[in-house]
Amino acid sequence: MTRLRFELLNTSGRGRRGRIFTAHGVVETPTFMPVGTAATVKAMTVDAVKATGAQIVLGNTYHLMLRPTAERIARLGGLHKFMNWEGPILTDSGGYQVMSLTALRKMSENGVTFRSHLDGSAHTLTPERSTEIQNLLDATITMAFDECTPYPATHEVAKQSMELSMRWAERSRKAFVARPGYGQFGIVQGSVYPDLRARSMDALIPMDFEGYAVGGLAVGEGQPIMFAVLDQTTPRLPVEKPRYLMGVGKPADLVGAVQRGIDMFDCVLPTRSGRTGQAFTRRGTVNIRNARHQDDPRPLDPDCTCPACSSYSRAYLHHLTRAGEILGAMLLTWHNIHYYQELMAGMRKAIEEDRLDSFAAEFHREQAAGDLAPWQ
Amino acid sequence: MTRLRFELLNTSGRGRRGRIFTAHGVVETPTFMPVGTAATVKAMTVDAVKATGAQIVLGNTYHLMLRPTAERIARLGGLHKFMNWEGPILTDSGGYQVMSLTALRKMSENGVTFRSHLDGSAHTLTPERSTEIQNLLDATITMAFDECTPYPATHEVAKQSMELSMRWAERSRKAFVARPGYGQFGIVQGSVYPDLRARSMDALIPMDFEGYAVGGLAVGEGQPIMFAVLDQTTPRLPVEKPRYLMGVGKPADLVGAVQRGIDMFDCVLPTRSGRTGQAFTRRGTVNIRNARHQDDPRPLDPDCTCPACSSYSRAYLHHLTRAGEILGAMLLTWHNIHYYQELMAGMRKAIEEDRLDSFAAEFHREQAAGDLAPWQ
Repeated sequence: MTRLRFELLNTSGRGRRGRIFTAHGVVETPTFMPVGTAATVKAMTVDAVKATGAQIVLGNTYHLMLRPTAERIARLGGLHKFMNWEGPILTDSGGYQVMSLTALRKMSENGVTFRSHLDGSAHTLTPERSTEIQNLLDATITMAFDECTPYPATHEVAKQSMELSMRWAERSRKAFVARPGYGQFGIVQGSVYPDLRARSMDALIPMDFEGYAVGGLAVGEGQPIMFAVLDQTTPRLPVEKPRYLMGVGKPADLVGAVQRGIDMFDCVLPTRSGRTGQAFTRRGTVNIRNARHQDDPRPLDPDCTCPACSSYSRAYLHHLTRAGEILGAMLLTWHNIHYYQELMAGMRKAIEEDRLDSFAAEFHREQAAGDLAPWQ
Repeated sequence: MTRLRFELLNTSGRGRRGRIFTAHGVVETPTFMPVGTAATVKAMTVDAVKATGAQIVLGNTYHLMLRPTAERIARLGGLHKFMNWEGPILTDSGGYQVMSLTALRKMSENGVTFRSHLDGSAHTLTPERSTEIQNLLDATITMAFDECTPYPATHEVAKQSMELSMRWAERSRKAFVARPGYGQFGIVQGSVYPDLRARSMDALIPMDFEGYAVGGLAVGEGQPIMFAVLDQTTPRLPVEKPRYLMGVGKPADLVGAVQRGIDMFDCVLPTRSGRTGQAFTRRGTVNIRNARHQDDPRPLDPDCTCPACSSYSRAYLHHLTRAGEILGAMLLTWHNIHYYQELMAGMRKAIEEDRLDSFAAEFHREQAAGDLAPWQ
């Protein structure tokens, strides 16, 4: 087996139905990757994650390098064994968290020095170190180390940031240890500026990464700008490589991005929302903490087959959430990940049948219809 | 089917192997009931609870009457349906929590008035109201409303408290709505005084409860005194009724109490400890937060078949617990309940084979041997 390989099976408009072959199994795309920040998808067992249909999860280099450390995970046999997830794992490069979580950081051409948010200890991340850490973790897919350009940024700031990320991409690529069924993705930067995005792709594509991510989005620019950037970007990416939109998003973001040729997503939204009582359903978002649910014997979503919907009432989920019970977080997280996976499966089928746009129209119609009418 | 029925199958010394037939299924005794305070065994799905071998769970009248309220649970079809637990449920009477959780309470011959720890609202519990609440919850086993005598208590205080509880037991019994396969247990009080325990039993036994609990123990008196009270108490209880030691306990407490003729237990220890990193194993208790586990690739208990032990290292469980991850609470709770259920299953088998004392000796030998030696 050569490096990680992508097979494009069908298209529907710009939507792509594909398959990623990895050392840890096959990923059907478009795919959503649940976030397993600290070597666990929060509030879920791996069996539950698998049961939702998820095929690949994400791990966070920043969190894992600080605790329990990459070296420790390597000694224990790698991240797959550590967290008991046999399937593919994508790790981010740590760059995004360094920018967003740590106050005391110092950027240079070489990389970033920063202090841990846990104990204040000093650390350095460079393209080489980030790649080494991801290698120690045994990540199936390694991400190039980049600077996530803040939003908004002037053209000049965005240009310098993108150019730094491109130099870092080259160093990341050199540091990557190729292994059969493993791969490394480069990250397109350039903020909202089409010329910078184009130059970023011109720089990355010759490096021949196994896939390309679109970075620097979902940072506050809003869906119309995000979609506009995708419209300018994905047509210039190589068709034979998977495309990953980092940190996205809400269900409507996923649908629109798949329509714009994205194959992979990750986001904390379904897991984080599950811990605060917010559920995603085909009829839109439902805040189960709302008092209107307290006597409602109906399931959260009558058409959903997840355990939260098939075995429990809204009244019970409301009770658990109000009482701060862990089971509330467990069930709502499960539901949200299940819903996200069903949405992706629906899009995969729609692309196979070349009806992605009508799928999207039906999705928007259902979302707009809103939640079930109040129970009598 | 008549009221809940107990069948005594075997004995070994004073240890009893029995079977309780209820409207919601059979319970093999001796049994341990996981505590489902607020209509959930904390951090566990019902499937996980079932998978440990648990056959009956406990619900708390005090917590449920305040939130979501007994009336709401009744409207929603009862506690079994609400929490998706089809098996038997025993509910306590609320008396213990009123005494221990609420600051503003007022006792009278009639009952207790108190303020909710949640919102300060005023409530009254009487024998009639406690029994009505448990009926609304559809409890398989209803407990008589009693006063849990504080420890230590003078003979005079313990006498008056016990006598009040006996008058309340009579009122509770009258308020109980008999249904096929349902039952109500009376509670023996009398603190550490054999004459008071005897008078309590003399009062309760003519009321012909479907079972008898030993109350007022595990309140700080220590294991030797607790065992001494059991030695004086269980021989005077009717052999044809199940016996329940409330709020107990550590594994060694369970073994000693089964040797003294107890059939049923409940305790928050395995669930609460699971959320704070303490694990119960056949080699004693293990604090997984301890730094000695951080590089240990071995399972918590190599002889345990629970998911925490069969799929994860101590290093991983240590990491989860240190990182405050919900999965740590989920896995350790699962392990602890699994261990408790295995311990009970072991005792049931030992009684069947009339070797309970040698089982207990082996249990104590293993516990004393201590945890695995440090990993190299």
